[in-house]
Amino acid sequence: MTTRQPRVEVEYCTQCRWLLRAGWTAQELLTTFTTELGEVALVPGTGGVFDVRLDDELLWSRKAEGGFPEMAVLKQLVRDRIAPDRDLGHSDRKASGRDAGA
Amino acid sequence: MTTRQPRVEVEYCTQCRWLLRAGWTAQELLTTFTTELGEVALVPGTGGVFDVRLDDELLWSRKAEGGFPEMAVLKQLVRDRIAPDRDLGHSDRKASGRDAGA
Repeated sequence: MTTRQPRVEVEYCTQCRWLLRAGWTAQELLTTFTTELGEVALVPGTGGVFDVRLDDELLWSRKAEGGFPEMAVLKQLVRDRIAPDRDLGHSDRKASGRDAGA
Repeated sequence: MTTRQPRVEVEYCTQCRWLLRAGWTAQELLTTFTTELGEVALVPGTGGVFDVRLDDELLWSRKAEGGFPEMAVLKQLVRDRIAPDRDLGHSDRKASGRDAGA
């Protein structure tokens, strides 16, 4: 199979019913990085997994981090690797001193 | 990159804003074939593309077919290839003589 890079992979636990969360994550990333991502793959898994990978790098693991990624944080992780000059908008400016939105 | 098979690929036109349609298609397939699909990839494209592939086979092409796939039809195309014994429910029974729902 040919895949497109950069490739994001969202592996989610089907037993936990996290498909909608994974689908939302995929669409958020593709909305922000419209033409900068080669593909985003939704990967059914089990056992409480919610892992986000960029190419071969694990960006987020629910088990390691103890929870789900904040969307603004996840976008920053992706941005830093594929489009470091991109400004992600108000949620990207720490100087405001407010909590980041998505 | 390692991919999981069977792999479905939904390539959509970003200029046409078909991400939501592609995302919905991916989630419908993963809802029906919860653990039978290895992954579903969303692939940004251009120029009016809306193609659905299963591994290396083109299942649906908007340009060839002249429109978008009916979800029930698309699920049957996938089912016939990865889970031929699966009954897809009421929309799968032609004997009813009614139009198929999703």
